[in-house]
Amino acid sequence: MLRNLLLAAILILAPLTRAADPLPSWNDTAPKKEIIAFVQEVTKEGSPFFVAPEERIATFDNDGTLWCEQPLYVQGVFALDRVKELAPGHPKWKDQEPFKSILAGNLKEALAGGDKALLELIAATHSGMTVEAFEKIVTDWLATAKHPRFKQPYTKCIYQPMVELAAYLRANGFKTYIVSGGGVEFMRPWTEKAYGIPPSQVVGSRGKTKFQMTDSGPELFKLPEVDFIDDGPGKPIGINQQIGRRPIIACGNSDGDLEMLQWTTMVDWPPLSGGLRLRRDPPPNRFGLIVHHTDGIREYAYDRNSHIGKLDKALDEAPKRGWTVVSMKDDWKTIFPFPSPEPEK
Amino acid sequence: MLRNLLLAAILILAPLTRAADPLPSWNDTAPKKEIIAFVQEVTKEGSPFFVAPEERIATFDNDGTLWCEQPLYVQGVFALDRVKELAPGHPKWKDQEPFKSILAGNLKEALAGGDKALLELIAATHSGMTVEAFEKIVTDWLATAKHPRFKQPYTKCIYQPMVELAAYLRANGFKTYIVSGGGVEFMRPWTEKAYGIPPSQVVGSRGKTKFQMTDSGPELFKLPEVDFIDDGPGKPIGINQQIGRRPIIACGNSDGDLEMLQWTTMVDWPPLSGGLRLRRDPPPNRFGLIVHHTDGIREYAYDRNSHIGKLDKALDEAPKRGWTVVSMKDDWKTIFPFPSPEPEK
Repeated sequence: MLRNLLLAAILILAPLTRAADPLPSWNDTAPKKEIIAFVQEVTKEGSPFFVAPEERIATFDNDGTLWCEQPLYVQGVFALDRVKELAPGHPKWKDQEPFKSILAGNLKEALAGGDKALLELIAATHSGMTVEAFEKIVTDWLATAKHPRFKQPYTKCIYQPMVELAAYLRANGFKTYIVSGGGVEFMRPWTEKAYGIPPSQVVGSRGKTKFQMTDSGPELFKLPEVDFIDDGPGKPIGINQQIGRRPIIACGNSDGDLEMLQWTTMVDWPPLSGGLRLRRDPPPNRFGLIVHHTDGIREYAYDRNSHIGKLDKALDEAPKRGWTVVSMKDDWKTIFPFPSPEPEK
Repeated sequence: MLRNLLLAAILILAPLTRAADPLPSWNDTAPKKEIIAFVQEVTKEGSPFFVAPEERIATFDNDGTLWCEQPLYVQGVFALDRVKELAPGHPKWKDQEPFKSILAGNLKEALAGGDKALLELIAATHSGMTVEAFEKIVTDWLATAKHPRFKQPYTKCIYQPMVELAAYLRANGFKTYIVSGGGVEFMRPWTEKAYGIPPSQVVGSRGKTKFQMTDSGPELFKLPEVDFIDDGPGKPIGINQQIGRRPIIACGNSDGDLEMLQWTTMVDWPPLSGGLRLRRDPPPNRFGLIVHHTDGIREYAYDRNSHIGKLDKALDEAPKRGWTVVSMKDDWKTIFPFPSPEPEK
């Protein structure tokens, strides 16, 4: 009887306890308080800052914002692994850059060719099959590949505080979207399981596809041509293409997110008649968030001088625009869904 | 007392009555029965044809499938009206086709220039402003423009049976999408109100946009360049870009929907091991629907020889693929949300 009562008490109280802290992996520092205050304000009916549920759009960059992008973008590691796997069928690669250097294990040399080398690498590894076949290739690769430092599958190297933030927003009527420079077809196979974000809510860079009727039915064939780069000024364009509404929250971690942050937060408020404008940065119904990689012990520390996830202009603009800068070291209790690693040797 | 009892009885029975007929504007002919049988099958847990909610994607063409496309595409009427409104600021249009003929009221001559004339018309009327400004132009136009025959706002010239079908699917866990050759930014301002389909679930043709920072903040500016044509083989491509999942229901009315219907319904089932294939057209968990415009009295009768909404190849393929062909005359009790018009004189 007592046991039943206790059980009942736990069942009743447990949800209350959870409700009291929707972001358990965040320290009780300023960012967490700002997020919660914002969400409470825009969801409070009667508030002058109330935002109708259909307008509650939150966008998240992926690399460096939702999952780890160091020491190399995961999609980059995937492409390199694909080159090695495909090499036996491409004997010419032995004498052809960037493949020659990749196969020789010389990544720096391989990428010395700049954007051209990168595009050749992506074209060679991300086209020449149907969209379904590519999905299977990605899924199979992710099932075995592991992060070199954390020794975990890449889909576990995700930021627990950001996963909680996305879930908290959804619990408050938001639709959460990924808006990433990464390839949309590289992300869609796993984002629902990892973040609770379904394929239709993933915006990303993409290659061209061709519809063709074959003996085994209609298929979409991936071509070796870039269709759209969802980075920098491409992010507001991608948001407009696919979502069709301006977000009210944007989260990023690099200068590639600058225009998305501007587009999301730099809106006039309140709207005054007579052509007068009053800008508050941001208005109380807009939220910009930057994940600042400050934790070299538990993750990686980098910003202005990093080749991957360079954060420079957006960091300068953050105080002017009122964006919340999250220090991973100071503001996050935990980083990953697994225990934090020992300091890197 | 008796009145209260009666009222209670009505309140209790009304929902039951509605639940018993989710498609009241459809006659009890084959298409309605096929739709209901399909939905019951794919939503029945334990059925071999059960489809998980996240996979329940239904796509609808817009022009001629959800709303009236005769005697001219609504977006075409909009473009012509825009030319007349913008003409005072473009004195050169008086000597320049297709504008010259449009301003002279000679539509046939205006469109004699083919695709080139059409693209010039769209470029001149659909670009040169921000996406928000364009949204306002569309909204303002729709508020006053009326269908020449039905004397109703265009957003009322929608097919009541199709609106019911979309709502019925949503009530059964489907996500409903528009996949139209029409311009995405022409549709998004009104589809939520008309059909219950929000902007993010509208896939369409689109022009290019440019992100720019101005004195009044960041903006997306509409450029006079085509970015993507969401028609014919473009429809599966647009679906893959924006939805990222193959639909299980596709509804169309013209050859522009052929590839979408093929892509949706031509899948192997059941999946057999050993490389064997067995095709059923369509498998029991896929549904193709064609709205056939057979009602010259209440709407318009047209198919193989029409310049607008030509239905020829898809009509030939329908019986081979097992697509359901809906005869507006025979299968729809009502056409519009307003009373059917008198026969055209």
